Amino acid sequence: MENTLIDRFEPKFDSSGLLTAVAVDSASGAVRMVAFMDREALAKTRETGLAHFHSRSRGALWLKGETSGNTLQVEEILVDCDQDAVVLRCRPQGPTCHTGAESCFFRKLDGDRLIPAED
Amino acid sequence: MENTLIDRFEPKFDSSGLLTAVAVDSASGAVRMVAFMDREALAKTRETGLAHFHSRSRGALWLKGETSGNTLQVEEILVDCDQDAVVLRCRPQGPTCHTGAESCFFRKLDGDRLIPAED
Repeated sequence: MENTLIDRFEPKFDSSGLLTAVAVDSASGAVRMVAFMDREALAKTRETGLAHFHSRSRGALWLKGETSGNTLQVEEILVDCDQDAVVLRCRPQGPTCHTGAESCFFRKLDGDRLIPAED
Repeated sequence: MENTLIDRFEPKFDSSGLLTAVAVDSASGAVRMVAFMDREALAKTRETGLAHFHSRSRGALWLKGETSGNTLQVEEILVDCDQDAVVLRCRPQGPTCHTGAESCFFRKLDGDRLIPAED
């Protein structure tokens, strides 16, 4: 069974040195945000238990919630088959989106428009 | 309320022309896989109702399940606040991972090892 595979963690950073990280609320399973991690962000996340990302726009380490206080406490890190993406199972402190929404994914596609998603 | 925002869909493709796409099982909410979509993959997905991605390794359009039959029928597309990531709420046909696991995220980090994730 592939499911019982035990393996070494050897993250496959892309050509920009990044992994994709999906933060989900461990209580509801809902996706809260998607961001990227470089080796430093991954190490800081594991060291502190708080989600850190690499800001592609600022080119810098970013502690999620550093200014807002809306941190993501990471309970578990799932790793995908080819080790280039992770799911962070988190206990969120407050809303995750900078707009004040719980999740960054608060809208859904409806034709060419975005309309509120049912929570 | 930001949550009631109605807006135009204007996807923000990155410098490689890609959005991040997270496919979740609409029944359980579990993350099945993470991949990337260019404009073509997004259009094909919307046109056919089946998840299409852009394979970064092959540099080509990729219908998920084209060879295995394990497609992802997309019921809803959630879009994040800055429109550079989407969540595909899907009805999966069969397992999603090429290993045969339901989800590509079938392992979790335990120190430097990957061990089976619960369910």
